[in-house]
Amino acid sequence: MKTIGIGIVGGGYMGKAHAVAMSSVGAIFNTALRPRLEMVAATSLESAERYRDAYGFARAAKDWQELVNDPKVEAVVIASTQDTHRPIAEAAFALGKPVLCEKPLAETVEDARAMTAAAEASGVANMVGFNYARTPATQYARQLIAEGVLGEINWFRCEHTEDFLADPETPYSWRCNGRGTGNMGDLAPHPINAAMALMGPIARVNAVCETTIKTRPGGEVTNDDHAQIMCRFENGVMGHIYSSRVATGRKMGYVYEIFGTKGAIRFDQEDQNALWLYQAEGPEAQRGFRKILMGPEHPDYKPFCLGPGHGTGYQDQIIIEAKDFLTAIETGTPVWPTFRDGLAVSEVVEAVFDSSQSGQWVEVKR
Amino acid sequence: MKTIGIGIVGGGYMGKAHAVAMSSVGAIFNTALRPRLEMVAATSLESAERYRDAYGFARAAKDWQELVNDPKVEAVVIASTQDTHRPIAEAAFALGKPVLCEKPLAETVEDARAMTAAAEASGVANMVGFNYARTPATQYARQLIAEGVLGEINWFRCEHTEDFLADPETPYSWRCNGRGTGNMGDLAPHPINAAMALMGPIARVNAVCETTIKTRPGGEVTNDDHAQIMCRFENGVMGHIYSSRVATGRKMGYVYEIFGTKGAIRFDQEDQNALWLYQAEGPEAQRGFRKILMGPEHPDYKPFCLGPGHGTGYQDQIIIEAKDFLTAIETGTPVWPTFRDGLAVSEVVEAVFDSSQSGQWVEVKR
Amino acid sequence: MKTIGIGIVGGGYMGKAHAVAMSSVGAIFNTALRPRLEMVAATSLESAERYRDAYGFARAAKDWQELVNDPKVEAVVIASTQDTHRPIAEAAFALGKPVLCEKPLAETVEDARAMTAAAEASGVANMVGFNYARTPATQYARQLIAEGVLGEINWFRCEHTEDFLADPETPYSWRCNGRGTGNMGDLAPHPINAAMALMGPIARVNAVCETTIKTRPGGEVTNDDHAQIMCRFENGVMGHIYSSRVATGRKMGYVYEIFGTKGAIRFDQEDQNALWLYQAEGPEAQRGFRKILMGPEHPDYKPFCLGPGHGTGYQDQIIIEAKDFLTAIETGTPVWPTFRDGLAVSEVVEAVFDSSQSGQWVEVKR
Amino acid sequence: MKTIGIGIVGGGYMGKAHAVAMSSVGAIFNTALRPRLEMVAATSLESAERYRDAYGFARAAKDWQELVNDPKVEAVVIASTQDTHRPIAEAAFALGKPVLCEKPLAETVEDARAMTAAAEASGVANMVGFNYARTPATQYARQLIAEGVLGEINWFRCEHTEDFLADPETPYSWRCNGRGTGNMGDLAPHPINAAMALMGPIARVNAVCETTIKTRPGGEVTNDDHAQIMCRFENGVMGHIYSSRVATGRKMGYVYEIFGTKGAIRFDQEDQNALWLYQAEGPEAQRGFRKILMGPEHPDYKPFCLGPGHGTGYQDQIIIEAKDFLTAIETGTPVWPTFRDGLAVSEVVEAVFDSSQSGQWVEVKR
Repeated sequence: MKTIGIGIVGGGYMGKAHAVAMSSVGAIFNTALRPRLEMVAATSLESAERYRDAYGFARAAKDWQELVNDPKVEAVVIASTQDTHRPIAEAAFALGKPVLCEKPLAETVEDARAMTAAAEASGVANMVGFNYARTPATQYARQLIAEGVLGEINWFRCEHTEDFLADPETPYSWRCNGRGTGNMGDLAPHPINAAMALMGPIARVNAVCETTIKTRPGGEVTNDDHAQIMCRFENGVMGHIYSSRVATGRKMGYVYEIFGTKGAIRFDQEDQNALWLYQAEGPEAQRGFRKILMGPEHPDYKPFCLGPGHGTGYQDQIIIEAKDFLTAIETGTPVWPTFRDGLAVSEVVEAVFDSSQSGQWVEVKR
Repeated sequence: MKTIGIGIVGGGYMGKAHAVAMSSVGAIFNTALRPRLEMVAATSLESAERYRDAYGFARAAKDWQELVNDPKVEAVVIASTQDTHRPIAEAAFALGKPVLCEKPLAETVEDARAMTAAAEASGVANMVGFNYARTPATQYARQLIAEGVLGEINWFRCEHTEDFLADPETPYSWRCNGRGTGNMGDLAPHPINAAMALMGPIARVNAVCETTIKTRPGGEVTNDDHAQIMCRFENGVMGHIYSSRVATGRKMGYVYEIFGTKGAIRFDQEDQNALWLYQAEGPEAQRGFRKILMGPEHPDYKPFCLGPGHGTGYQDQIIIEAKDFLTAIETGTPVWPTFRDGLAVSEVVEAVFDSSQSGQWVEVKR
Repeated sequence: MKTIGIGIVGGGYMGKAHAVAMSSVGAIFNTALRPRLEMVAATSLESAERYRDAYGFARAAKDWQELVNDPKVEAVVIASTQDTHRPIAEAAFALGKPVLCEKPLAETVEDARAMTAAAEASGVANMVGFNYARTPATQYARQLIAEGVLGEINWFRCEHTEDFLADPETPYSWRCNGRGTGNMGDLAPHPINAAMALMGPIARVNAVCETTIKTRPGGEVTNDDHAQIMCRFENGVMGHIYSSRVATGRKMGYVYEIFGTKGAIRFDQEDQNALWLYQAEGPEAQRGFRKILMGPEHPDYKPFCLGPGHGTGYQDQIIIEAKDFLTAIETGTPVWPTFRDGLAVSEVVEAVFDSSQSGQWVEVKR
Repeated sequence: MKTIGIGIVGGGYMGKAHAVAMSSVGAIFNTALRPRLEMVAATSLESAERYRDAYGFARAAKDWQELVNDPKVEAVVIASTQDTHRPIAEAAFALGKPVLCEKPLAETVEDARAMTAAAEASGVANMVGFNYARTPATQYARQLIAEGVLGEINWFRCEHTEDFLADPETPYSWRCNGRGTGNMGDLAPHPINAAMALMGPIARVNAVCETTIKTRPGGEVTNDDHAQIMCRFENGVMGHIYSSRVATGRKMGYVYEIFGTKGAIRFDQEDQNALWLYQAEGPEAQRGFRKILMGPEHPDYKPFCLGPGHGTGYQDQIIIEAKDFLTAIETGTPVWPTFRDGLAVSEVVEAVFDSSQSGQWVEVKR
């Protein structure tokens, strides 16, 4: 069996998720290429050793440079802070090593552009970690749209709402300062990516970003709490995107609703194993939104379970992502979302910031 | 028992609803003032006779003028087409007769303004028929917000989505032409009214109206199918309003979601007897959106049924409206929404049309 | 227009509901026969006068005898306590007057049998007030089953759960003593009636009735709080019925689930405007329970509203009932559920009590 | 880091699930004891080699005996057919090797009793794979009940409904013959186990098992399709359990509803990340069932994800099970459900078969 040495930079929330995914993806998907947990890097060697021990890596690196340069590390997963994404990715691509980079690709569109150029120059597999779009339900929604089941689409709405900063008494933290850690930097890329995954490129936006809780115990909040975006897709469809970290009560409010001339789709990731589909066919008296439970008939479900309705969860999204990354490496065929797709998200974020400042419609620049 | 002679102009969909409401409101609410179904007018005497017979009116009028002028008609309900609202209301007010006028008040903001002036000059009871805002659930939502249960509100979203024109094969009709019968004239006043009922006045808007199905069998569609509105309320809160008549699968998608620092509310009129409330209190592990079923503890429910969860429906909204109209007449105290409240909706509609044309933020003019 | 004088015995919860229904049924359904609120009787003339005034009856009766004998009273609605049902009904039938009697028909199966005999001997319209089975959704469910949409049915489950006595601190009252006011007397007839409406006659039962809160402030509870019934329908299908007045949190838990070889139905009256239908057809990946919102295509909805999803409520069930009663009178054709149907419910209740005592399967005796 | 060699007998549906779980449990839970995928056995060496390759085991065994006897196999997971459970478990216990055995423990109560004796004689860790009871939601439900949040419980209902044999055209297979593979042997142990996990031991039952589709293409069905069980728990509470493999439309209908004097719980595994809780406290007008989304505050959720509402799935249940098995081995403390708990389920199954034959209440024999 062919194996590949994986190095993961970052051992926190996402680093762990990727380590777990790399541990189990082979058994689940019976992948041609099997990951070996070769090396982990963190902010200190001490942390890296702790992660090595906990997640089962062979070795710990003293810094990301050591990891990237290690000959046994054949592919790199970047799960460290946004400001480190660019140098790590560029170093890995320079050595011809495939990269799976956590979202968002970078804090600025310039960085994202440079990283995309490096990825494409290297010609190796490159991917961005928009895991939420990998649920069987969202993959199936993409398929239904592509097959024309909704007819001509006339409206797209999505949101990503959480409430981790909804309480004004939650103290000031690193999340409260800096463009990359605000709502637009952290949360909004998810629904923007969803919008483009489902509907194609966004042509222009008219948006408002704002800070609703300006002072917290310990400091002034300088980045945005929530944002709304009216958008026009390149295919002419009108849409709306909302994201918030102050949406009291919402925990994983990754929601979309799409209306077309023949049907409609609704999805709420708080019940990620169901997709709601309405079809304008059959007797009027029998029509209604259908709650379709994910099962072996839907994309990437069967390897997890042969029984429908038994459910997949958050960690499984990362496992699907790992499978796709391995497939991209193995086959040499790019798998969505590539760095270029990640760049497209950054370009929309940039336009949103511009529009929020000017109060005008702004074209998304490529 | 004190009675009052009611004259209803229009015997179609809404005329019938008002006739039924006036038949049963006395028994349900034990109102001090009891309506007598005195007279009905329609587009022809023949139609009026038919309505008289079906709904149980004492007499039919040959036209609205006869009805308004009839001495036994002591209050007038206007349920005819929008273009007739202004002359009927002005004639009734001139005679000192209270008026309950169907929404929207008028096709243009000028007409709405003139009607409001006439209403206020007359000093008699005047009311606009925004029935959807009268469900026990929405009344209770208003109460919760007023009591501060949600804390500082940071986001308001609402929509009114139906699908009666979603099928491109639905032929051209009177609904497809003219500002008053498009989505902005017909549907949007409902969510705009809801927005203001729950959040207070709207200061400015940035909107897009558009026609998604431009040609139908039988003609060209010249008014809007759907519209989205980013708005800023006078209290500083940011919001979004969407309305559509092409939202495949939605039948009564009168929905709102409101987030505040202490709680959140969700409502969908397709299940009008439930209000969802989240409160950020108690143990974290026990928090969640609570599905509150309407019952005798909630506004205007008990007269319909002593058992909670037994449910009220569409017709009951009109009955509540009738009760409030009778109370306004009896007590001389204005009951929301008055003509001035209806005018405020028209002012927002006007601003939306302006913004949609200019692509700019537009202040709502008063 | 042909009218009929209605006399209602009882002015409380159900008396009011029937008075309101008789006030508005004509306008809503454009019935051939129009009810006149002729007379109301109560436990005292004073109460009757109060009801007359509140609900708009022409006259009050000093007792039910006066009402039944009054020549202008041409049909009688019995909404008084269970022990009075039999004498009132028998007196009315003796005079050839149609009777709409509240459920359950009587406290004992003997009384129910006598009343049914009287009804059938008189040959006039007779009906029992099982209003919950008259929602558009449940009527539509019956229709779907009759059309074979579910295929061969293999399982039927229903319940009627409320919580008005769930709190042990709720004091002892008239509801806590006597067979007719316990769960089996008061609530269980509803789901038993639903079971038979949807599935046909019940052949035998195996049941447990019990009192869960035996002592309340003010007295000992001597009737049952809840009961479960395993049953076998005459068509061979196995079922289960549960009813409870101590089901904390349930307000109108009138629920049924039915599985067949081709489809399944689920209904919960807490959201009475939706019926859930699953059909085992079409691509496996697109199957799911469909939430069908009631609309003009469904039984008895359209007269209330032309728009689907706009909803009917509790009071509307009684209005539909009134319409059917008037139709039965007008046409001379019995309308389900007749006294015989009500008797069938009493027969099942009797068998349930027997089974609960013996712990054995008991045949339903007819 | 301490490791333990795992041998898995069976490489199909459940064998794979356990292999995956053993691959990732260490990284997820940072377990003290780390599993090594030592050996897999199947019905042939060829199959075993295929599983070894796919799931990443070190070696394949020619039969289960070789696996159990292998010195590097230190713990055994039994995921083979029911008839093999007993000999494998007895052999493993004889060698002092801990065993995790798939449910149900055995086809007959005699076998289950012998296996339990062997387990207890050996003194090593022993566990039965009732994975569905290990979701964070069900663990939390158990905790809420134990803490008395529901008060005095008066009713328990649960079901496990699937539809894999609902279509009469589904051909005859190994599932259609033999006690262990019918509904009572295969599905019912899950809800019976849930019932006892939530409510404690079952004292007696009154049940009906039946075959609804007696002939299928290819053969006569001789085991049961569905069964209903009225039961009395030892704590005096009345309950009902239903299980079915012909419940059209249900995919993972693992549902329970529990009512108590202070609160109620509802759960449906088709949305396994939500638990519904009603508490009879606070203002009446604000009460309702609360949809609690599982998060880091709930049992065994946090190791999978730091964000609430992000969800766990089917495979995660098996991982939690693996963690508990490893903990039992490491600490020497039995972890629910032990073989004795599995035996208790078999004892109830036995009583159900007896009752279904006699039509009587049957005591559960221990």
